[in-house]
Amino acid sequence: MTWALELRETQRDSQIVGGPDAASILSERAAGLVAAGRRLFVITDRNVMGLWGSEVIGALGDLAGSSAVRVVPPGETSKSVATAEACWQWMASVGARRDGTVIALGGGVIGDLAGFVAATYLRGLELWQVPTTLLAQVDSSVGGKVGVNLPAGKNLVGAFYQADLVVIDPSFLSTLSERELANGLGEVVKYALLAEDDLLEVLESGTEAICGRSEEMLSSVVRRCVELKTEVVVADETEHGPRAVLNLGHTTAHALENALGYGEIGHGAAVGLGLLVALAVSERKCGAPQALRTRLARLMERLGLPSRLPLPATERLIEAARRDKKISSRGSGFVLLEDRGRPVFDIDVTPLEFAEALEVIRA
Amino acid sequence: MTWALELRETQRDSQIVGGPDAASILSERAAGLVAAGRRLFVITDRNVMGLWGSEVIGALGDLAGSSAVRVVPPGETSKSVATAEACWQWMASVGARRDGTVIALGGGVIGDLAGFVAATYLRGLELWQVPTTLLAQVDSSVGGKVGVNLPAGKNLVGAFYQADLVVIDPSFLSTLSERELANGLGEVVKYALLAEDDLLEVLESGTEAICGRSEEMLSSVVRRCVELKTEVVVADETEHGPRAVLNLGHTTAHALENALGYGEIGHGAAVGLGLLVALAVSERKCGAPQALRTRLARLMERLGLPSRLPLPATERLIEAARRDKKISSRGSGFVLLEDRGRPVFDIDVTPLEFAEALEVIRA
Repeated sequence: MTWALELRETQRDSQIVGGPDAASILSERAAGLVAAGRRLFVITDRNVMGLWGSEVIGALGDLAGSSAVRVVPPGETSKSVATAEACWQWMASVGARRDGTVIALGGGVIGDLAGFVAATYLRGLELWQVPTTLLAQVDSSVGGKVGVNLPAGKNLVGAFYQADLVVIDPSFLSTLSERELANGLGEVVKYALLAEDDLLEVLESGTEAICGRSEEMLSSVVRRCVELKTEVVVADETEHGPRAVLNLGHTTAHALENALGYGEIGHGAAVGLGLLVALAVSERKCGAPQALRTRLARLMERLGLPSRLPLPATERLIEAARRDKKISSRGSGFVLLEDRGRPVFDIDVTPLEFAEALEVIRA
Repeated sequence: MTWALELRETQRDSQIVGGPDAASILSERAAGLVAAGRRLFVITDRNVMGLWGSEVIGALGDLAGSSAVRVVPPGETSKSVATAEACWQWMASVGARRDGTVIALGGGVIGDLAGFVAATYLRGLELWQVPTTLLAQVDSSVGGKVGVNLPAGKNLVGAFYQADLVVIDPSFLSTLSERELANGLGEVVKYALLAEDDLLEVLESGTEAICGRSEEMLSSVVRRCVELKTEVVVADETEHGPRAVLNLGHTTAHALENALGYGEIGHGAAVGLGLLVALAVSERKCGAPQALRTRLARLMERLGLPSRLPLPATERLIEAARRDKKISSRGSGFVLLEDRGRPVFDIDVTPLEFAEALEVIRA
């Protein structure tokens, strides 16, 4: 049940360990550090602290009288310069040194925030990611993107900083809300399109097990997603080119989130819909088979992700997509698919082509 | 007169160009970027802007209608999270993208601040360092250490981020105050002790030319210091070991600055005195020849650096040195010298040994 991956060709080596017993993995690894006189600094949020704090921190704390914990408010607002600064000052106040280890225990916000704090405190400490949401397990905890938001846009300040250790435990997923599970499933479905192997078939045959939170099924799916992501990251760590394929579906997703409001549509739903739009454009421009889109829509519905939505005016979505491209500085191009497992990136898509493709998801 | 060095074994490649005509080097390099549709973002301070702004920014601005300039207040207080945040927000407001280039025009504060902004905005932009002080030219602009201070201590937040281009122009040195020149000379004398070649003799025979601001002499000395620094940095970019030798003299220097107040003693004077203390300890513990310390003291006096000072109580200096070690997390050891060009690091020095060595600089 336990699996492991190593990233060795990135700026910093990274080890990813998956399995149903994060606490014991952490206990073992923490014991090594603490025996060497090193200290652990956990950054988490109030929700995760309530659900998992005693178990995870207990696993560290039995070993480490010197470990310290910082609990920040849950939610995107904690991914800010102000919260990072509070964490830096906390690190100073508890006397963190260069041989300290930061442990990010939580979802994507915590991983990005604590990862940025670890990347920059004393010019970089050891970092362990312990992702507790499906989205963080398949996406944000792996690949080294860390950072915070500015009022002007998301993720404008940050670094590429691989975690020394990522511990991916499916048992955390048992406490996720339906919406949080769906947020991760949007990314999982994206990987199924990018993958050359049979991940799509695995999802199709495993829908019930996934929705029933089978640890075995979730662990196997997460492992495949992480393997795929690490391949892409190793090929292009700092996103000068091919790493862009991981943004498949995301231009439309960000436009939907922006135009509808982040509270109104979940990230997973937005990414799923964005994938359908990307496929519709791909049919016109890259010869992607229409059957793939039909098949994907059916899978999404079975996973609880919408395949159609009442949309705002097309003009607003076009404008939001343009702004997202501009702010994210990912170039002007879309990621499209020639077919399953054959992404192409930086493709020019006209407003008219985008508008036509949006119709396939309009309810 | 023009010289160039390349760092290729660091996380990011770096090119260092020295010569008496920074403006033309910058013009040429900027032209290439601007022709490719890329933009330049200059961060500088009010003093440097007044002295060199029109010349340097003119060299860029003739080419680049799209370049933008941010002027921050001069002095150490600008090396803060608040100023970094203001710079990040400025980058967003002027629409910087991932293909933008940050130009740090100024002394060490500007280099550290703008370097940190470049390292973190959109997870890292191209960075050019244009150091305008002797201290920045021989020390902070080279080697990739960037960052800001927290109230709890200096340089607590930052990154290792090599500049893509460093342009070192001796003509900037003509407008330095005596104190600013001395701040750099403290580091220059340090390199003379670390060097295996004849830098010490060059300084001894060139004292008058240096104090007379001979561009040729200063350029030659800066070049030797930078060559030595890059060798050390390539061997240990992220300071896990041997890079510590660059801290020769600095534990005592920081203790003096701390105990006397940063306004009361210049960094160059403090480093020079710190070198004499390190040599005195080295005589006891590593067999360094006393003649070297006598020779160094004579050179320092001729360069306008004090070799003795009325000192505060020894206990205060011991306490300040202990605190510096603790905050800087450099381990508990001193850097000492077995002889010229033969540094050893991470050596335990007792408070008594330190106290005895302090007597050699007490006036």
